[in-house]
Amino acid sequence: MRTKSPDLAEKILAVAARLFAAHRFHEVRMDDIAGAAGLGKGTLYRYFKDKEDLYLALLDKAARGLRQHINAGQAEAVDPVAKLEAMVGSILEFFDANPYLLDLLQHAEGRQQTGTLANWQEVRSANVKQMTAILDEGRRAGLWDVPDPEIPVLVLLGGLRAVLRFSPPPRPPNLAKRIVRDFLNGADRSETFAVPGAMSG
Amino acid sequence: MRTKSPDLAEKILAVAARLFAAHRFHEVRMDDIAGAAGLGKGTLYRYFKDKEDLYLALLDKAARGLRQHINAGQAEAVDPVAKLEAMVGSILEFFDANPYLLDLLQHAEGRQQTGTLANWQEVRSANVKQMTAILDEGRRAGLWDVPDPEIPVLVLLGGLRAVLRFSPPPRPPNLAKRIVRDFLNGADRSETFAVPGAMSG
Repeated sequence: MRTKSPDLAEKILAVAARLFAAHRFHEVRMDDIAGAAGLGKGTLYRYFKDKEDLYLALLDKAARGLRQHINAGQAEAVDPVAKLEAMVGSILEFFDANPYLLDLLQHAEGRQQTGTLANWQEVRSANVKQMTAILDEGRRAGLWDVPDPEIPVLVLLGGLRAVLRFSPPPRPPNLAKRIVRDFLNGADRSETFAVPGAMSG
Repeated sequence: MRTKSPDLAEKILAVAARLFAAHRFHEVRMDDIAGAAGLGKGTLYRYFKDKEDLYLALLDKAARGLRQHINAGQAEAVDPVAKLEAMVGSILEFFDANPYLLDLLQHAEGRQQTGTLANWQEVRSANVKQMTAILDEGRRAGLWDVPDPEIPVLVLLGGLRAVLRFSPPPRPPNLAKRIVRDFLNGADRSETFAVPGAMSG
């Protein structure tokens, strides 16, 4: 049995990502991927036993890539506000830079296979935990008071997905800052407390 | 050719919805649906030519049902705050009352077939348009100032989906009110403007 080259595996994944970004999942065949990578089908199938194996490898690589990108952004952020903005910005950047990813993720979620998306469930949990920790840090520092962050964090992270799906690039300037500002202080730009009765009743 | 009974079609859809709520899409067979509905397979296939035809009919019915439920809630709401809360509440209620729906929608989205989800794209557009109109109404009434609602509305509606997916019922009390309050005034419960520098730089 011949050994596999990690470089060639990476090349195949990069070629497949490019094809998945340009075509619907069902339109991309293993033949197309082999052709675009300049490989024989035998070689391609030695690396990935079928299209499912290949796209799961692509999703796995992307899951690790997103977490790395978020953590790289966090390393440069100096305070809780900057950390929130960096986290929102990193998520938008990563999906924008990997335009195949959201469709592939939706395809995998639609298949609902147990275990298939364990890596992405971990990404989601890690993101929720990390954002909650930033909110706690800011609360301890007296920057804000978000006493019950569970639902707001879910809404924000889920909201980013809607932005990625339905509001394609180019992005408005300072989008991450604006989203964080809305998250903390609301979409209302008036200075008064706008809805005094909203929590009553 | 025998005529079809609308009542029986409804019954089949209700039975199928129950099965899809309890099992993964791929696990539910037309045989199971026929059995649970007390029908022969021949009768079932006279109503729906295959499982795809059936689940698309179910999604189509749900799309109309969600919009009707939202509009019923709007009819009872007297001011823009109540309209926002009713809209958020109606969406949460409808998906909670139809527990098969989110998985089925994700399945359909994962298939990415052109036209398959045209009815749900219309629902999404109608929801965005309706929420934007409520925000405009509140702005004209001096209740708040949301000058650029596009991204906030996307984040809110997308965020509701994350709540439905990842935070199952029972719901916290006043959840719709809390989500609307967070949307307008932010997750920050402190009275001060918490992040004065957040929009600079």
